[in-house]
Amino acid sequence: MSRESDDLAELDKTSRIQTQNQTPAADEDLEDLALGEDYALNPEYVPLVADALDRGDAERLRDLLSALRPEDIADLMGFLSPPDREELIPHLDPETLGEVIAELDTEIREDVLEHVPSATLAKALGEMESDDAADVVDDLEEDKRAQVLAAMPEVERAAIETTLGYEEETAGRLMQREVVAAPQFWSVGQTIDHLRADSEDLPELFFDVYVVDPAYKPVGAAPVSHLLRTRRDVPLAQIMEPVTEIPVGMDQEEVAYIFNKYHLISAPVVEPGGRLVGQITVDDIVGVIQEETEEDILALHGVSDAGRDASILGITRSRFWWLLVNLGTAILASSVIAIFQGVIAKLAVLAVLNPIVASMGGNAGTQTLAVAVRALATRELTAANAWRIIWRETAAGLLNGLAFAVVMGLVTVLWFHTPMMAVIIGLAMVINLFAAAVAGILIPLALDRMGYDPAQSAVVFLTTVTDCVGFFSFLGLAALLLF
Amino acid sequence: MSRESDDLAELDKTSRIQTQNQTPAADEDLEDLALGEDYALNPEYVPLVADALDRGDAERLRDLLSALRPEDIADLMGFLSPPDREELIPHLDPETLGEVIAELDTEIREDVLEHVPSATLAKALGEMESDDAADVVDDLEEDKRAQVLAAMPEVERAAIETTLGYEEETAGRLMQREVVAAPQFWSVGQTIDHLRADSEDLPELFFDVYVVDPAYKPVGAAPVSHLLRTRRDVPLAQIMEPVTEIPVGMDQEEVAYIFNKYHLISAPVVEPGGRLVGQITVDDIVGVIQEETEEDILALHGVSDAGRDASILGITRSRFWWLLVNLGTAILASSVIAIFQGVIAKLAVLAVLNPIVASMGGNAGTQTLAVAVRALATRELTAANAWRIIWRETAAGLLNGLAFAVVMGLVTVLWFHTPMMAVIIGLAMVINLFAAAVAGILIPLALDRMGYDPAQSAVVFLTTVTDCVGFFSFLGLAALLLF
Repeated sequence: MSRESDDLAELDKTSRIQTQNQTPAADEDLEDLALGEDYALNPEYVPLVADALDRGDAERLRDLLSALRPEDIADLMGFLSPPDREELIPHLDPETLGEVIAELDTEIREDVLEHVPSATLAKALGEMESDDAADVVDDLEEDKRAQVLAAMPEVERAAIETTLGYEEETAGRLMQREVVAAPQFWSVGQTIDHLRADSEDLPELFFDVYVVDPAYKPVGAAPVSHLLRTRRDVPLAQIMEPVTEIPVGMDQEEVAYIFNKYHLISAPVVEPGGRLVGQITVDDIVGVIQEETEEDILALHGVSDAGRDASILGITRSRFWWLLVNLGTAILASSVIAIFQGVIAKLAVLAVLNPIVASMGGNAGTQTLAVAVRALATRELTAANAWRIIWRETAAGLLNGLAFAVVMGLVTVLWFHTPMMAVIIGLAMVINLFAAAVAGILIPLALDRMGYDPAQSAVVFLTTVTDCVGFFSFLGLAALLLF
Repeated sequence: MSRESDDLAELDKTSRIQTQNQTPAADEDLEDLALGEDYALNPEYVPLVADALDRGDAERLRDLLSALRPEDIADLMGFLSPPDREELIPHLDPETLGEVIAELDTEIREDVLEHVPSATLAKALGEMESDDAADVVDDLEEDKRAQVLAAMPEVERAAIETTLGYEEETAGRLMQREVVAAPQFWSVGQTIDHLRADSEDLPELFFDVYVVDPAYKPVGAAPVSHLLRTRRDVPLAQIMEPVTEIPVGMDQEEVAYIFNKYHLISAPVVEPGGRLVGQITVDDIVGVIQEETEEDILALHGVSDAGRDASILGITRSRFWWLLVNLGTAILASSVIAIFQGVIAKLAVLAVLNPIVASMGGNAGTQTLAVAVRALATRELTAANAWRIIWRETAAGLLNGLAFAVVMGLVTVLWFHTPMMAVIIGLAMVINLFAAAVAGILIPLALDRMGYDPAQSAVVFLTTVTDCVGFFSFLGLAALLLF
């Protein structure tokens, strides 16, 4: 709760200095045109670039590109035709090209990587952080990969190979090897002097200087903003804060949980022995969180690996298996109906009402399921409070079951004028909504306990339960009470 | 790709300095016990705290709490009984209490806020960042709010009231008013000197010094790591980078999109006139991203405002309305079956097979829907590429329709030995999976175009379409071809 910095504005009122990044008016117009108000690339900008490419107008192209940041150029690539995309590549300097490649969607990235000469790519990779560079190398075809690695300086190549040695989706793959570390006996002044002297070799951005012991184990971290505001003679050991060490083999989902929990900006990554080997920064984590929640949302609906292979055949194939499993469960549920075929033949109205109970169970169950899956992901559902949540969900399921028993009972009386049918559908509703709540919470808990992703197959199991229980309770009660 | 800092470790090999934060062995044992390997609170730690509370053992309690960070204490509160929770509060100093309150789940937070004396709460709020403090004040009952605000110093109260003046879920609510700004004519050295002199008034952590013009409009940002490594005589204007300004009224989902797109760590927030009024940092964004994706995942399943009111009655009520809408659509679908009641009476096997086509359509449609909703959220689905994605999805839907026509046709022949029935169910499958794909993509697109949240009610519309089309095509074809 500090610092109304109006005094600073005051200080500056008399002097008006032209800054270096001031751009001429023409470029500002392009900047306004390039991006929408929400910083999304303006679709109208695409034909301008395509046109300049077609005319081979390098100067116009440079102006157009200068209004875009690498992330925008990556978006632009997504809208360009493949030949235009290829033509654009030579117009990007190695640093920009590296950043653009890091941002591209997998599908387009593969296409672009094919068309970048190995030497250019090697240079671009050298400009990237080691984690991003390793990601790109990992995506290359085997031949190209060998060529590119051969074209890189020894140190950079070794860094990439080490990173690729860690398992996918672990801290080791997520981290960058570039860190700033200082021994604990250094003072703030010594540290700053060292940074200034070494400024060429430093990571582009960093948020903490890790304080290490003689064995290169992190013992604390000095946030750069603390370094800036502390007197030069204060020892680092005095201003450093405790660090949250990330083991190099930790799963990225756990890393994201820790960053989110402690609001970390960066954290040191350590080898099993405790030696500092790299750092993870929060901007990598934002990507992971989005990726993991995305996986949850898609897995819940039986879509896996979206975007990996986005051809029509690829999509068809990837969804086929989930649908096949669903067909199996639908047939299973239908065989429950088949048991009561004789009853339906006598009273066709049962076939009309039959899907309602099952459908309500499916919907109520997925409500519970969605809550349980997210609570597991955010660690709000644990062994310690599982019983409380099971009780809460089943009680809510039972109450809604009773509510809809009344509602559907009334509808049935009004529709078919048979009170007994109303009683039957009401009872079936209570049974199925209760079963839906129990299954909605127990299925993801059981999957999680057994080490599976609770989102992945939970819906199939759930709807199998709610369909079978729904059909069986409604038709069974009808057979029992009507004939 | 830089800085193998072994030289630093080397430098330190001879000297072994005892650091200040070195903790005695006993406390380290507690720390090991407190948290699991994944930094989640160990459930076994809870009874230890409860026990110390019951015995009124303040010293033991201090030891136990010192092994926890505020985020862990917030987790602990979730596991304690309400009376234990109340008793714990006086053992926390204002700064810790503030941080704990900021981390609590809504439900528990409301309970805790009731039991913290207004004066203590006012002190705790003073230690928090303005955005977090405003959130807490927003949650207070009216009486308590007035008391707490009255107990705060004028400046802090004004800051909170200004923040609460902005609409919920906008940049204004998300930002902290604490920023570090410097005029563009300052040198690096001047800036550092100023920060050191003013260190009391600075935000706890900051990542950028915003460079402002005389009207206090941001013209650039100097990352603190750049300040640290640049010579003292270099002017700020020379090392500053372009900033991405966030308008104070921007929706938090858009803010998150921008942070994610450009990998921002912090960004200045400006008033409509362009004046700097605060900053948003990436740790706030991590929360927003999780919240927004969470909303999507729950909205897709008809769960709204999860956790807001987590009592059994509250949950029952919040889910009731969605289920009621679903009941309406289920009855609508059943009335399609009712049209064909006569046909079913003649051939009950139709009632057995009838749910299968509808169920497959629902599942295939939600696959498409989940992809479309996420693509809209991440701006991968735009007006420019909508047609390509519509084509891709409907083609995939048609292909899977054909595939399952064959599979289900074979199953039907094997099960009921009626080839004509196999033809009917196959045709219905193709029709419904095609309809599912079209509806799965067009419904969220239309909702989005009309300014609604595409996740919110899409599933209801979708399953209405797939149920009705499924029942009608199967039973209609049967009526046409069998009798």
